[in-house]
Amino acid sequence: MGFTVYDVSLPVHPGMLVWKDNEARQPGVTITREAGGVRESRVSLDCHTGTHVDAPLHMIPGAAPIDRVPIERLIGECRVIDLTGLRDRISRADLVRVDEREPVSAGEVLLFKTRNSANLKPPFDRGFVFLAADAAEFLAEKEVRAVGIDYLGIERDQPRHPAHRRLLEKGIPIIEGLNLARVPAGRYFLFAAPLALVGVEAAPARVVLLRWQE
Amino acid sequence: MGFTVYDVSLPVHPGMLVWKDNEARQPGVTITREAGGVRESRVSLDCHTGTHVDAPLHMIPGAAPIDRVPIERLIGECRVIDLTGLRDRISRADLVRVDEREPVSAGEVLLFKTRNSANLKPPFDRGFVFLAADAAEFLAEKEVRAVGIDYLGIERDQPRHPAHRRLLEKGIPIIEGLNLARVPAGRYFLFAAPLALVGVEAAPARVVLLRWQE
Repeated sequence: MGFTVYDVSLPVHPGMLVWKDNEARQPGVTITREAGGVRESRVSLDCHTGTHVDAPLHMIPGAAPIDRVPIERLIGECRVIDLTGLRDRISRADLVRVDEREPVSAGEVLLFKTRNSANLKPPFDRGFVFLAADAAEFLAEKEVRAVGIDYLGIERDQPRHPAHRRLLEKGIPIIEGLNLARVPAGRYFLFAAPLALVGVEAAPARVVLLRWQE
Repeated sequence: MGFTVYDVSLPVHPGMLVWKDNEARQPGVTITREAGGVRESRVSLDCHTGTHVDAPLHMIPGAAPIDRVPIERLIGECRVIDLTGLRDRISRADLVRVDEREPVSAGEVLLFKTRNSANLKPPFDRGFVFLAADAAEFLAEKEVRAVGIDYLGIERDQPRHPAHRRLLEKGIPIIEGLNLARVPAGRYFLFAAPLALVGVEAAPARVVLLRWQE
């Protein structure tokens, strides 16, 4: 069973792109032992740095943390949708057009490839392409299984974070910080693997897409 | 394409099983923001706590760190081998018996299920089942793609860590801290996903096995 692997994760290192260029969000690495050829390290990570998955607890007090998000929501068939033509936001109208071309079905995972994928180095882009509240509402109605986007967050400048809330209220995890630059639009098999951090609202993740070779 | 998912990762939380019960290796979680229903956290993790992958740099100065281990080594067909009858160690003779029943081929991923899988809570077991140096030599000769075991380390009480070195010298990553208790011996599709920590010798990972439904 041959396949091509696309690693769509952001490498994690000090100096990487972080939310609003806030230095306190940078990762830290400390070598804790280096002797006799053996090296051991410890890392300090903001749970929303780089490629990561938001669980409902991120925006809904008492809701599921990342270790309680069913891993089945993050594994399986997915669709990478090319929205690189958009300047500012993904709106409901944009998704209706996608749906008309190829219907969005319940249980589907959608990953949005935008111009953000060309822009995943610092400085932070305060004008990144985001998911509008009405578009999130559309995805919640469709009962998609998970949603992914190619910037550190899925929304900006929407008071009270309605895009997050619409999705997370439905138990739909949000995969943020994907690098889709090298990935053509189309269908893939997704593995999004957040660390199983108990009781935490999000976790850094390694995410890959597989394309089966015919 | 239906499949069953086995999550073989250890949940990460303070108080989990850590190497030699060393408190300094416990994970730490800090809530960095909690306001208006939004929660954000930061974690501090030993790179060898819980389920994780060792890269060659762990034991070989100048060798590949975890972000340079080809992800293809950690994705694909694998075999879970039942060695729960062993008391002390996995020796070359044990693997020769496995090989006689069903040949070990180059490029194969082998995961060893031992009595350790019933014993993944604290306290640390200083008598855990480990991989003997001659068994690691056998695996290196066979040029397996990756190796996994169900304790926090793959060896103990072997001066200069020959099991690690034999494997890592060949570029064979070692997946440690698997929980195989619920997984029957047999063939699966492995997805072992270490964080892409740049320049670091190991990384925490989420690891799942898929079994395709016929």
